[in-house]
Amino acid sequence: MQARVLALLRDEGPLSRVQLADRLGVSRTTIAAEVTRLSELGLAQEAGQAASRGGRRSTLVDLAPDIRFLGISIGATGMSVGLTDGRLAVLAIRSRDCDIRQGPEIVLATALEEARAVMAECGVEQPLGAGIGVPGPVDFHRGVSVSPPIMPGWDGYPVRDAVARELGCPVVLDNDVNVLAVGEQHAGVAKAARDFLYVKIGTGIGCGIVVDGELYRGVDGCAGDIGHIRVEDFGPTCACGNVGCLEAFSGGAALARDALAAARSGRSPVLADLLEQKGELTAADIAIAVSRGDAQAVQLIRDCGHRVGQVLASLVSFFNPSLIVIGGRVTGLGHALLAEVRGVTYRRSLPLATGNLPIVLSELGDDGGVIGAARLISSSVYAPFDGDRS
Amino acid sequence: MQARVLALLRDEGPLSRVQLADRLGVSRTTIAAEVTRLSELGLAQEAGQAASRGGRRSTLVDLAPDIRFLGISIGATGMSVGLTDGRLAVLAIRSRDCDIRQGPEIVLATALEEARAVMAECGVEQPLGAGIGVPGPVDFHRGVSVSPPIMPGWDGYPVRDAVARELGCPVVLDNDVNVLAVGEQHAGVAKAARDFLYVKIGTGIGCGIVVDGELYRGVDGCAGDIGHIRVEDFGPTCACGNVGCLEAFSGGAALARDALAAARSGRSPVLADLLEQKGELTAADIAIAVSRGDAQAVQLIRDCGHRVGQVLASLVSFFNPSLIVIGGRVTGLGHALLAEVRGVTYRRSLPLATGNLPIVLSELGDDGGVIGAARLISSSVYAPFDGDRS
Repeated sequence: MQARVLALLRDEGPLSRVQLADRLGVSRTTIAAEVTRLSELGLAQEAGQAASRGGRRSTLVDLAPDIRFLGISIGATGMSVGLTDGRLAVLAIRSRDCDIRQGPEIVLATALEEARAVMAECGVEQPLGAGIGVPGPVDFHRGVSVSPPIMPGWDGYPVRDAVARELGCPVVLDNDVNVLAVGEQHAGVAKAARDFLYVKIGTGIGCGIVVDGELYRGVDGCAGDIGHIRVEDFGPTCACGNVGCLEAFSGGAALARDALAAARSGRSPVLADLLEQKGELTAADIAIAVSRGDAQAVQLIRDCGHRVGQVLASLVSFFNPSLIVIGGRVTGLGHALLAEVRGVTYRRSLPLATGNLPIVLSELGDDGGVIGAARLISSSVYAPFDGDRS
Repeated sequence: MQARVLALLRDEGPLSRVQLADRLGVSRTTIAAEVTRLSELGLAQEAGQAASRGGRRSTLVDLAPDIRFLGISIGATGMSVGLTDGRLAVLAIRSRDCDIRQGPEIVLATALEEARAVMAECGVEQPLGAGIGVPGPVDFHRGVSVSPPIMPGWDGYPVRDAVARELGCPVVLDNDVNVLAVGEQHAGVAKAARDFLYVKIGTGIGCGIVVDGELYRGVDGCAGDIGHIRVEDFGPTCACGNVGCLEAFSGGAALARDALAAARSGRSPVLADLLEQKGELTAADIAIAVSRGDAQAVQLIRDCGHRVGQVLASLVSFFNPSLIVIGGRVTGLGHALLAEVRGVTYRRSLPLATGNLPIVLSELGDDGGVIGAARLISSSVYAPFDGDRS
């Protein structure tokens, strides 16, 4: 009951007791008692009168205004740390570069430093809980990273418990794409979607899966690991040890590698100029080269989109989602990438599955990870005996 | 409540009132009243004394012994029609060849003929309901076939309502692989699995998906349509109009085509002999040729298993299931096929997802489709206001 009342207030805002009773299918007496209990716990409170609809005006119930959640979204090359209120509005956010390969001690110390800075900024001493996303497989129930290909040193590290000890509050740990999918569901384009995919194209490539409104994690917690789906029989060796993986062709690291090769070989004068100026190239430089009319850069984006589209077409045939959201840094490559992804996906899937299937870019940016992480911990805090629901 | 009591009796057999109350978390008074109501409806009854555990012996409750469900499982080239009791034990079953391309009127008339024969055999005038599986996409809620590539003439045909009118009982219609997956869950190797895949390799190739114990159908009802996943950039044209689809390489129809080519080209003397004897070849003849030591036939099976394995590896990365069951006529090709499928799937997936992943052949044979179809309609009949649960 507590979890359902608080989740409803989180997702829909202030509601009257009558509305709460109707939505949850319980009596007004039950709701009144529950609201009193939640007020005593400091989780909910009365919040003014509802607009009159004739008759007696009813009092609205809202979440306590001082509830704060911390959302920590760690990617392969950067992190965002933010503070939200009980309804997951972002009150402050800090983003910075950070290399996941530095290992858990350094990366988590950096995250905690950012967390303390963001809490100081908002005058918060203690959040109600913190959610964390990391760019690799996670044992959700134990709160531990598990054999993450691009995260050397993290295997088996007790991320959840280490951070909980430092912060002195409950913590949940999940895969970064799961966190992003949940953020998109709460505040982004996936609000109305029950069965959708969130595909992140960052340094690596992964996919968050939502089934009937709930995250689907798979039996070992590694569902959505689509970066290692084979797209060619041969190709560059992937971090996982196989060859021909999607990520080894089309992830951010692979694009940076291809951009470098195009600059050095003389195939792309624009990328060569950028390399000379900066000393290195990232996937973002390809977008700059495209904006300067570089044909080789356009080709790199097309190849990336083509292979991502091939994999998405397979997933559409298998999963028949109502929506695909594409996020991650590589989406900075913009509409040329999206056009190619869409073209291949629509062409290679059965018409029945794509007739009403939108494929869209996420618009949440760094907020998405923070909101998603905050939402995961909010569900856990709101439902103290059922930490497994998003 | 009715649905939960009846499903428990269906899946676990006779239980005492005390056991029912404990399992469903309700009071004994509630259960006693519900059992009385179900007895009056003719759905449940008392069934002797439970074994004494000291103290008063309690009376067992069981499903009414005269409950009968009809299960109709239609494939591309054959059908099985069976009658089950309330717990879905198969009482009688009839299987026959039948070409789905004859269209709905002829195929359904044949199915109804078999249904009447099997009912006559068991002395049953009227089943409580019937479940039907067909080899193509289905609009589950409307009970209609939808744009099925290998089922000319079936698009939009109101299968459910047509059969319900003939039989005079409630009917549910689903995709054949969904029906097979549910059958496997009830009586086969998937009994303990919550998240698993049932892959059928018959004339076509499809996949039933079970998430948290429930069928996942996708937003348009065509989830699991893996036969049209691309495995090569070029190749034979598929029934769906694309090229490079798994089904166009490795489905039963494709194998028969390749066997014929091997016979005619002189590459396989054994298949050439079989062709001369029989005038045609099917996928099953490849198994005969293998048993006679034909190298080309072994190669055909290896190629089939290799491509199926490539697709399964992708699905394992995406879905991280706890079990994969392989069924359908092509499994008659046996362990050579399974060995190749397993080899490729295990090699091409991340170790985390395959560490505890069994890939096994279904052992239910024709019974699987009948039990699955009966289970779908039983859930609908047992829960009159919630026909959507398996």
